[in-house]
Amino acid sequence: MTGTLTVIGLGPGDPRYWTPAATAALAAASDLVGYGPYLDRVPHRAGLTRHPSDNRVELDRARHALDLAGTGRRVAVVSGGDPGVFAMAAAVFEALEEARPGWQGVGVSVEPGITAMLAAAARLGAPLGADFCALSLSDNLKPWDVVMSRLRAVLAADLVVALYNPVSRARPWQLGAALALAAEIKSEETLVAFARAVGRPDEGVTVMTLPEAVDRAPSADMATLVLVGATTTRLVTGADGASHLYTPRRVGRQP
Amino acid sequence: MTGTLTVIGLGPGDPRYWTPAATAALAAASDLVGYGPYLDRVPHRAGLTRHPSDNRVELDRARHALDLAGTGRRVAVVSGGDPGVFAMAAAVFEALEEARPGWQGVGVSVEPGITAMLAAAARLGAPLGADFCALSLSDNLKPWDVVMSRLRAVLAADLVVALYNPVSRARPWQLGAALALAAEIKSEETLVAFARAVGRPDEGVTVMTLPEAVDRAPSADMATLVLVGATTTRLVTGADGASHLYTPRRVGRQP
Repeated sequence: MTGTLTVIGLGPGDPRYWTPAATAALAAASDLVGYGPYLDRVPHRAGLTRHPSDNRVELDRARHALDLAGTGRRVAVVSGGDPGVFAMAAAVFEALEEARPGWQGVGVSVEPGITAMLAAAARLGAPLGADFCALSLSDNLKPWDVVMSRLRAVLAADLVVALYNPVSRARPWQLGAALALAAEIKSEETLVAFARAVGRPDEGVTVMTLPEAVDRAPSADMATLVLVGATTTRLVTGADGASHLYTPRRVGRQP
Repeated sequence: MTGTLTVIGLGPGDPRYWTPAATAALAAASDLVGYGPYLDRVPHRAGLTRHPSDNRVELDRARHALDLAGTGRRVAVVSGGDPGVFAMAAAVFEALEEARPGWQGVGVSVEPGITAMLAAAARLGAPLGADFCALSLSDNLKPWDVVMSRLRAVLAADLVVALYNPVSRARPWQLGAALALAAEIKSEETLVAFARAVGRPDEGVTVMTLPEAVDRAPSADMATLVLVGATTTRLVTGADGASHLYTPRRVGRQP
């Protein structure tokens, strides 16, 4: 029997965000491959074998998943968020280019999920209500000057910017440098959100001005998504007193 | 009793992409407000009143939803995709700024959904595997020169570009102009995908080079999401012969 490999996104931590399509793919799987804490989110059941790995070996993990599928297993590679956004799907296709003989006939598919910026945006209000971008601050796989030049371009173009992978143990200063660059380009009134672990019990969401964000960069961690607002991004107080961050759809003069 | 307003994203057409959180919010609603074809996706049940509207009156629709919530109703404003991405959530917060007396006490919340670019990307492979952005090509609410200058900035920065609202009856030429600009900036080998109605029975996904995309711009319609690849975006043939579009995580030289 020919095996299959499905790359699944579980969204933020809460199963309330798993799509029925992802749940069905998990139910059909014989083997789960992924970073240990993501696998721990999936309930145990008979006939389901787990292959946890640590977080820094994406390509090895992808090859291992293809090897398993090559023996006829139905493999689910489990990511948080959306597997196509700074997660496992690209690593699987990178591995697939090696076209190893043992993988003959294996079909690969991807199930989308709620990526961190969508979960954070919904919790905050609608900060992605106009044009926006998603940049990874990790310089593990791209030079830091590329990160900075891309950031400069999108800030100057006044897109809302979602910063993924802002901090890790090995990359402690990059978020501070990115926010300092933003402070050179944008006004002091620019709003920034740190959205940590949205959808999990330890969730925390904070909105501040850009100078405050520069000061508070050291408080962000690996579970934080950082949103830098556009010029128009603003706070509105709701009729129940709650505060919402949003970006109006309209830009500039009336067209 | 104080009413509530929840803005819900149903993702692409297929209920397999509705999150349990969105389903629960629909089950708790007394009233549905939204564009008619989106409301038609929600099964009928006793006690659920529908308020369909056409597609070009977002702010009126948001006010109407707040008016209903102000009378104590539990209102769900229904969007396709994610409500925070070029959809109803920003319009609700824009309306909320008017702070009309009848809305006193109404709480507003947002439930995220699978936005079109995530659904399209999963179907194609992993084209959003590196830095990317989402731009609306509609010049109803922003000047066309802003659209073009943003597009120029993100193409020059080599982000993958997802183009929302590429075409409408009133905006027939904008996609052709955008792709012609892309052809000035990017090489002829740049890959472009037209992903139409992903997750619906009339789904159609096509990958082509940028010059072909310029020629085929008139074939796109309102249900099409257009993805313009980065320099590194490529096709890989899977071990089962299927073709996948993906963007490697790595950029440029080894860091």
